Amino acid sequence: MSDDMNGAESLVRTLIAGEVNVCFTNPGTSEMHFVAALDKVPGMRCVLGLFEGVVTGAADGYYRMLGKPASTLLHLAPGLANGLANLHNAKKADSGIVNIVGDHATYHLKFDAPLTADIEGAAAPMSHWVKTSPTSSTIAADGALAIEAANQRPGQIATLILPADTAWGPAEAVGVTAPPAAPAKVSDDAVKAAAAMLSDSQTATLLMGGTSLCQKGLELAGRIAAKTGCGILTEGANTRLERGAGRVQVNRIPYVVELAQAVMKKAGNLVLVGAREPVAFFAYPNKSSLLMDPDATSTKLAGTDQDMIGALEALADELDCLNLAPTGMAQPSRSPLPTGETTQGTIAQTLSAMLPEGAIVVDESVTTGREFFPTTAGAPPHDWMNNRGGSIGYGLPVAVGAAIACPDRKVIALEGDGSAMYTIQSLWTMARESLDITILVFANGTYNILRGELTNVGVQNPGPRAVDMLSIDRPSLDWVAMAKGMGVEAARATNAEELNKAMEAGLHSEGPYLIEVAI
Amino acid sequence: MSDDMNGAESLVRTLIAGEVNVCFTNPGTSEMHFVAALDKVPGMRCVLGLFEGVVTGAADGYYRMLGKPASTLLHLAPGLANGLANLHNAKKADSGIVNIVGDHATYHLKFDAPLTADIEGAAAPMSHWVKTSPTSSTIAADGALAIEAANQRPGQIATLILPADTAWGPAEAVGVTAPPAAPAKVSDDAVKAAAAMLSDSQTATLLMGGTSLCQKGLELAGRIAAKTGCGILTEGANTRLERGAGRVQVNRIPYVVELAQAVMKKAGNLVLVGAREPVAFFAYPNKSSLLMDPDATSTKLAGTDQDMIGALEALADELDCLNLAPTGMAQPSRSPLPTGETTQGTIAQTLSAMLPEGAIVVDESVTTGREFFPTTAGAPPHDWMNNRGGSIGYGLPVAVGAAIACPDRKVIALEGDGSAMYTIQSLWTMARESLDITILVFANGTYNILRGELTNVGVQNPGPRAVDMLSIDRPSLDWVAMAKGMGVEAARATNAEELNKAMEAGLHSEGPYLIEVAI
Repeated sequence: MSDDMNGAESLVRTLIAGEVNVCFTNPGTSEMHFVAALDKVPGMRCVLGLFEGVVTGAADGYYRMLGKPASTLLHLAPGLANGLANLHNAKKADSGIVNIVGDHATYHLKFDAPLTADIEGAAAPMSHWVKTSPTSSTIAADGALAIEAANQRPGQIATLILPADTAWGPAEAVGVTAPPAAPAKVSDDAVKAAAAMLSDSQTATLLMGGTSLCQKGLELAGRIAAKTGCGILTEGANTRLERGAGRVQVNRIPYVVELAQAVMKKAGNLVLVGAREPVAFFAYPNKSSLLMDPDATSTKLAGTDQDMIGALEALADELDCLNLAPTGMAQPSRSPLPTGETTQGTIAQTLSAMLPEGAIVVDESVTTGREFFPTTAGAPPHDWMNNRGGSIGYGLPVAVGAAIACPDRKVIALEGDGSAMYTIQSLWTMARESLDITILVFANGTYNILRGELTNVGVQNPGPRAVDMLSIDRPSLDWVAMAKGMGVEAARATNAEELNKAMEAGLHSEGPYLIEVAI
Repeated sequence: MSDDMNGAESLVRTLIAGEVNVCFTNPGTSEMHFVAALDKVPGMRCVLGLFEGVVTGAADGYYRMLGKPASTLLHLAPGLANGLANLHNAKKADSGIVNIVGDHATYHLKFDAPLTADIEGAAAPMSHWVKTSPTSSTIAADGALAIEAANQRPGQIATLILPADTAWGPAEAVGVTAPPAAPAKVSDDAVKAAAAMLSDSQTATLLMGGTSLCQKGLELAGRIAAKTGCGILTEGANTRLERGAGRVQVNRIPYVVELAQAVMKKAGNLVLVGAREPVAFFAYPNKSSLLMDPDATSTKLAGTDQDMIGALEALADELDCLNLAPTGMAQPSRSPLPTGETTQGTIAQTLSAMLPEGAIVVDESVTTGREFFPTTAGAPPHDWMNNRGGSIGYGLPVAVGAAIACPDRKVIALEGDGSAMYTIQSLWTMARESLDITILVFANGTYNILRGELTNVGVQNPGPRAVDMLSIDRPSLDWVAMAKGMGVEAARATNAEELNKAMEAGLHSEGPYLIEVAI
């Protein structure tokens, strides 16, 4: 430790001691001491983003893969604000993140300099924990508190505000972070109620979410299904689902209300494991917000704050099926390489045919991707991620974070063109860090989902001005040019054969590779 | 008016009746009724952005030029969040904006669907006025209140939250907006105090800001200077300054603390007209937050909420100089076209040589631009805008809004490469709307200002990891490729001759034209 440790250095050392050793960053003047400390303290990997939405989304993706928080470094309230949409998504995904937000020196705030704004107020809606550390001698302990907050189960968004004089003033100690507590066991009553529902109901379904969607949790669910004949289902969007050949296959509740209601009618009573009674993504006139069958009931086996795997084990034990073979195991199955036009179906076939074992799929394919999930069910084992918060622009940043977390695995980002534009700066960070990511951008030139939504909300025959607000093909976006402009190799695929070939190139590339898929 | 008017249509009609007839938008499902209403109601120009920071920044630029608010249309809390940084900048620029933020139907909120978050909380730090309109019969009146709030002097950020059922439910009336009140006159005492300070001080300066920086305000200042020998100065960043040949020339307070303090020492006592006692942009160890000469005092002639031009007239009358010729008038003067390397100096000369009359210069040139302002002082009359809030990424969106506001004027956006990346999606909107904007991106491949700031905050000999966090040239950004990818014509200039030629092409283009200036 250096003799003249300042607050910033004490914080960096606290983060590293607390096993937070990646920092996604877009710093400014008020963060310069933190940046300078990175050269004095080994052990922190720093990843620069050219926009803060990249930074916060990357921290989300990192947590999804490793279950431990990264830090971010953001510049005052506006820098935090640029990262809020992906913090919202991360919060809904139960990802733990330690945000470090620099502020003016405490004594400078009263002068209302240009960048002055209410950081705590801006942080609050998207954070579980917010604190401004008042002095350089408190920042290390506050840093440890922030890590502990982020380490809760489920993960939490912790925002620690670092005034400039807190960063540059003298510090003595490094903060000590308590290790994460084991998640709480569920009660016997919860297990018995779940067992009773599964045994007594005509139709019942395990509705699973959160970290129960790992291979082990799904295998337990498969044993329970083998014994009771129950269904297994997940919410519409999952933080991370382990799936593919040799794993228990599950379907997601569809986005479209009528389809979802039909699925839920078949599902019957629900045993909830890290999931809630399902609700519609949006409200629509004369449609229900609730998706559950009105005649069905639910019982909660475990929440995301509890030991979900332990709960499933206890339930399987109660039902005496711990040694039964799981039902619903996906058989290895790949589509043949497709030919002809690029359609939702042929793109799904290309993915099924080529998805490499261990791939991490970050799915922001919106309307184009509706066939991808079922068609890839028998591909080699892989992970599948969705947007839990619904704010588009999550995919490319989450892919950055997943690739940093798992450098030995291939990341596949599936992107609608509208979605990809929000955080397009991600491409540069992918190139800078040589991240092993293949990106498919589905260039349909429209916010296609909104065309359906116009009808869903009751708008008949939308006029040309409304349709124009949903069209993004005037001018058309040249994804190959944009990717190359940010240092990412790219190709365009206008039919299935070209997509197969471009996928081959992408999968063999060790850095990022973008494919514009004309559709 | 249609027989079956809904809340959204009543709001659109209220906006148009209140002279808010431009809407910068990035809508989603909850805004579909508003979008649909655009086809039923003539008179609203809708401009789509692919990212919300473009949308809010454009509304800022629009207000700066026309002094009246545009509306924005944003999708729930995350959509608003993406626009907050430029709302912060707009707020500091005293720009009035009416934000319309869609929300879930009121009855849907309790289900905590994915996009649910605290919109009022997210809006508060960057808004003067926030309201959720609870029903379709209240939204028109609330819309009128929002316009009235935005129309205050100085302008205000008004955020009106529109739940989906408020949009789709039945409405009857259109809201009536009270016309903006005339700004308050300043007191005789304020005028007399200012006159006394200017007459009695050894050295004194008019420190001007806000809308006093128009030709008329500066001319009055020039008459007062002719009579009293006072200086005239503006804050470091101005919302909009009318300058160029035949107008009274003023200098801005420099960014660097020591330079600013030297200027303020010479300035002496201050008469404040729409400006505050100057403060440093950031605090630095062992430097003062206040820039004023410690021996000087100030008196406030007029605030931004008052009639600043009337106050200057009253002051000139009090000093009996209303008919004096103004001092400090800029003489017509253009640099010769430069040759050789592109340097800060030669770029400034190109601007001076070629700036067209009536140009609107949006300056986000950061370190590269330090010579631009003085060198262009004698160019034909033009407007010059700075970032008042300090959150980079303001320039391209403000250029969009200024071009929409003033289609007959050439807009010149001067952009640092780091700054331009935050809201790079602006280029697409420029192409879509064929906006007459010439963009110069100064590609130095670094957050160059932060290199100086490392030293300013006391970091000696920054290490390689710190320097790496300020470097954005690994990989280098290809601005020509990115621009073309978004439909914008572009060229690269690697020396002064090429820049002159590219400027010629840009100025003769009627749509957007981007020049990557290697430096």
